[in-house]
Amino acid sequence: MTVSLAGNPVTCDLPPLPVLGRDVTVPLVTGGEVTYAALDYAASAPALQRVWDDVAAYAPYYGSVHRGAGYLSQLSTELFEQSRATVAGFLGCRPTDEVVFTRSTTDSLNLLAAALPEGTQVFVFETEHHAALLPWQRAKGARVTCLAAPRTPEQAVAALDVALHGAPKGPKLVCATGASNVTGELWPVRELAAAAHRHGARIVLDAAQLVPHRAVDIGELDVDWVAFSGHKLYAPFGAGVLAGRPDWLRDAEPYLAGGGATRTVVRRADGEVEAEWQESAAARHEAGSPNVIGAYAIASACKALTEAGFDRLDEHEAQLLTLLRDGLAEIPQVRVLSLFGADADRVGVLSFVVSGWNSSHLAAALSAEHGIGVRDGLFCAHPLVKHLLGGRPEDPGACGSPEDLSFNAVRISFGAGTPPEHVTRFVEALATLVREGASWTYHTRNGRCVPAPSA
Amino acid sequence: MTVSLAGNPVTCDLPPLPVLGRDVTVPLVTGGEVTYAALDYAASAPALQRVWDDVAAYAPYYGSVHRGAGYLSQLSTELFEQSRATVAGFLGCRPTDEVVFTRSTTDSLNLLAAALPEGTQVFVFETEHHAALLPWQRAKGARVTCLAAPRTPEQAVAALDVALHGAPKGPKLVCATGASNVTGELWPVRELAAAAHRHGARIVLDAAQLVPHRAVDIGELDVDWVAFSGHKLYAPFGAGVLAGRPDWLRDAEPYLAGGGATRTVVRRADGEVEAEWQESAAARHEAGSPNVIGAYAIASACKALTEAGFDRLDEHEAQLLTLLRDGLAEIPQVRVLSLFGADADRVGVLSFVVSGWNSSHLAAALSAEHGIGVRDGLFCAHPLVKHLLGGRPEDPGACGSPEDLSFNAVRISFGAGTPPEHVTRFVEALATLVREGASWTYHTRNGRCVPAPSA
Repeated sequence: MTVSLAGNPVTCDLPPLPVLGRDVTVPLVTGGEVTYAALDYAASAPALQRVWDDVAAYAPYYGSVHRGAGYLSQLSTELFEQSRATVAGFLGCRPTDEVVFTRSTTDSLNLLAAALPEGTQVFVFETEHHAALLPWQRAKGARVTCLAAPRTPEQAVAALDVALHGAPKGPKLVCATGASNVTGELWPVRELAAAAHRHGARIVLDAAQLVPHRAVDIGELDVDWVAFSGHKLYAPFGAGVLAGRPDWLRDAEPYLAGGGATRTVVRRADGEVEAEWQESAAARHEAGSPNVIGAYAIASACKALTEAGFDRLDEHEAQLLTLLRDGLAEIPQVRVLSLFGADADRVGVLSFVVSGWNSSHLAAALSAEHGIGVRDGLFCAHPLVKHLLGGRPEDPGACGSPEDLSFNAVRISFGAGTPPEHVTRFVEALATLVREGASWTYHTRNGRCVPAPSA
Repeated sequence: MTVSLAGNPVTCDLPPLPVLGRDVTVPLVTGGEVTYAALDYAASAPALQRVWDDVAAYAPYYGSVHRGAGYLSQLSTELFEQSRATVAGFLGCRPTDEVVFTRSTTDSLNLLAAALPEGTQVFVFETEHHAALLPWQRAKGARVTCLAAPRTPEQAVAALDVALHGAPKGPKLVCATGASNVTGELWPVRELAAAAHRHGARIVLDAAQLVPHRAVDIGELDVDWVAFSGHKLYAPFGAGVLAGRPDWLRDAEPYLAGGGATRTVVRRADGEVEAEWQESAAARHEAGSPNVIGAYAIASACKALTEAGFDRLDEHEAQLLTLLRDGLAEIPQVRVLSLFGADADRVGVLSFVVSGWNSSHLAAALSAEHGIGVRDGLFCAHPLVKHLLGGRPEDPGACGSPEDLSFNAVRISFGAGTPPEHVTRFVEALATLVREGASWTYHTRNGRCVPAPSA
């Protein structure tokens, strides 16, 4: 298929992977209904049809895991552990690595923060998502060095190198993103990992925005841990992953105190309760009944993406990105947010502001008048968005005046399930809104910009 | 329907609620297939058909929550918040209470432990599940008083009264179970709450085993918090609940550091990162993308159980319990584990040992030869099982010799989806095994007792 937009033909010959909701229609405030264009994949992606089908096929066989003696318990336990192995394979884990199922990337990074040796020095760029920026401050005796936003990938590596060079002896951790959740730009993970290891530091990769888009190989990147979420990987069933080196995790206090994490618990003669904890990282940090369906859904997504092939997925996404960027280039009022410049390699995540528009107003009109779902705000990365926009990091109020636009942005993001029509519809809708203004009026309700009851 | 077992007719006239897996058949090691009898509800219950149908109907409309501007994002955000309101209604929450979605009861109690004011004195019976016994030791400056297993509900209240009476001033918390996950026996929650409040203590109810079986009203019981899990409430999608008083939760550090929990994050001039956190208990402690499907599934289960009516569900369960206990009474080798005596009120959870049998061997034979799924072990409540059995709390090895039987037990548990046939099949299978011995041979593999490859 060749999509022509503003006279530039773009080849889009790779069909998207089937996802749930692909035929859902939504009402427009201006009348009628349209097929919903889900373009907020970076927040939560729709479930792959394959993931849903796998979960639906398993659901009647769901049973208690661990010490359940029944057939379905054994089947469920096996499925849960096979899911762990599938994820390990998907990430190219080394034989000694362990996969811990968590609830999300946020949870994974908080788990690692709780497992840091006392007094660990943590190095993180101010450009990170809050989930990767904030957990380290809470670690016991940790000292966090927050590095300024770099202007190039090379500058990022150099800045980290300098910071680590000057750091005193002791355990060190670098937390780096694979792909920015704001700009979509790729970070030089392999080079950052090399810099970390040169100075005896470890590195955890926030791969929340990377795994849905690119093949991630923990050994090839030579990172110590990888964290990601199921709900951004087409598997929205409440599970996430922390995979990598087990030693710090095995030495740490269990993340949660409870069943499954304990080997034995005794009440001593003096009345005190004493627990002996499991040693493997997974058992130690997965107290409580595991989320079997969530873990299986992630494994199913890993398989589906591997079978589709990341070469093909990358090509599909590159075509969509070309379509998007060519289209945006035709709207001079659009400013795309970028740290590393226009030529930087990026995944299907792009944020922008439009001259004369409040971003929340724009996002609301895209939804209400065009059935297009994007996101507005600061994307849980306030320091980065502040840096990119030069504005205050506070939320200006959902329907703020155009002068406020520098404090807020619009983000469009897509992935394996996105048909090119969604991107062209987005570009055309944006062009129409910028050229002609919104057809409806909007007001603020509960902090959100929404269509006013009557125009 | 009247079920006759060993000559005792028992009326079982209430149909079970439809659950997934009700028609699943499993192979027998002795040949052929039978319908699976899921009798490990206390670990994880099957999904209600209604819960599955609701989740399946919603899944195509799944979208990112919080600041997603699209129609599906708004719908998902509304669904998530409506689910919170449904749970609050189900629990009879007071107007000032808040509902926090967690991943499980274990997570809920760990969250509350992390939110205790510094130096809180915690009072808990040794009879608790590990998830209710162990989190408190980790709270900042907490002092934990572990009370010995009482012999009657009245003794429990008296023991708590004495312990609280002698406690020094300062914040105090009592953690009590609603129904034991080992014996199924009900604890005197209202009376324990009254004792706690008499002494200025607060009380959290571990309702993991209570909410699936009895109506729980937080105001009527006058407890400060209630914790429970979706996967025991026919909603196995990785979510749980902590509901109750918001003040300690609002004053505490956020449970996880990350997006959603932050109002603003700035990098100060000195390079340090400073976060201002959300104030409501839910937003403050639910960092990261919420598990919308998990929360909605719980709300769906709450609605389904409420509509079925707890009077009816209790009656159904009472009939099953009568069937079970009448049947077990015919097998003199069976010893039912009980703290409060044979007449104590209980939910559909019952543990026992059989003279001459290793419990793991028995559970394995019930599964492999009869297609019945129960549980063996110490049920994540080592001190309680030790107390009940008088044995060592260590696991004796899955296929241990009969002499080891005192260190392990078998648990049968059921609920709203259980047909009486499952209970009669269980009793008959148990009687056959006790009378005739197992037909197959079993060995230990990976710490589990499983059928040997050939008999």
